[in-house]
Amino acid sequence: MAEAHTPTGSDWLDAVRWDDKGLVPVIAQEQGSGDVLMFAWMNREALAQTAEKGQAVYYSRSRGKLWHKGEESGHFQSVHEIRLDCDNDVVLLKVTQHGHEPGIACHTGRHSCFFQKFEDGQWQAVEPVLKDPARIYKD
Amino acid sequence: MAEAHTPTGSDWLDAVRWDDKGLVPVIAQEQGSGDVLMFAWMNREALAQTAEKGQAVYYSRSRGKLWHKGEESGHFQSVHEIRLDCDNDVVLLKVTQHGHEPGIACHTGRHSCFFQKFEDGQWQAVEPVLKDPARIYKD
Repeated sequence: MAEAHTPTGSDWLDAVRWDDKGLVPVIAQEQGSGDVLMFAWMNREALAQTAEKGQAVYYSRSRGKLWHKGEESGHFQSVHEIRLDCDNDVVLLKVTQHGHEPGIACHTGRHSCFFQKFEDGQWQAVEPVLKDPARIYKD
Repeated sequence: MAEAHTPTGSDWLDAVRWDDKGLVPVIAQEQGSGDVLMFAWMNREALAQTAEKGQAVYYSRSRGKLWHKGEESGHFQSVHEIRLDCDNDVVLLKVTQHGHEPGIACHTGRHSCFFQKFEDGQWQAVEPVLKDPARIYKD
């Protein structure tokens, strides 16, 4: 992103309405297809690093630390746009999902995390596993 | 939705990992364009009603009650698909946004709530207001 090389103040980070845990929900949408790939969280440092690197950096609530998406799987996300909603409390990223074609954003080895569809009164997995997760995290 | 007329148990509702406030985050995506329109929350009753009506029913955290999207604005959302993510804790709706052409999902009168783009070190409103909010909520 151009911003990566533009010195910026932190007003834009102050404008975000961080929740009581200092986090903001983040939606990652694939730029090319429009598919919603995943949902995650960021803290202030994660959002700052995302803008700086031009790659998605989230905050892992389970691990309690920054999570540079792809650091283990190789499935990095280039960030083309960072958007903020009308209430300043949700972020939307437009990304390219790297590391596999088609992109794999989900830790189950699927394209998108939203692979369960409500059908006939139950959740049904309707998207294929593109790569065995055991191979994703060993590579 | 077909499900509206199919008697279903509540196993699918039990499968959702509701947070400590009994809520789940929800992303609404426009079926035709792929645009992410808005982000909101549902409780169990909101999700059950969404499936039953085939229209989006959210839970308003600020008002502390169910919010049948469009009840004041006329901007209802038909729900084509309900999806759940890999952790069972985020819902994605594929919707058609009614009441205006192009659809207005945002209370500011814009198509999408994600109209602020990070550019040149700041958030910039990059999407037009399609209808004056004062008119939306008076009609």
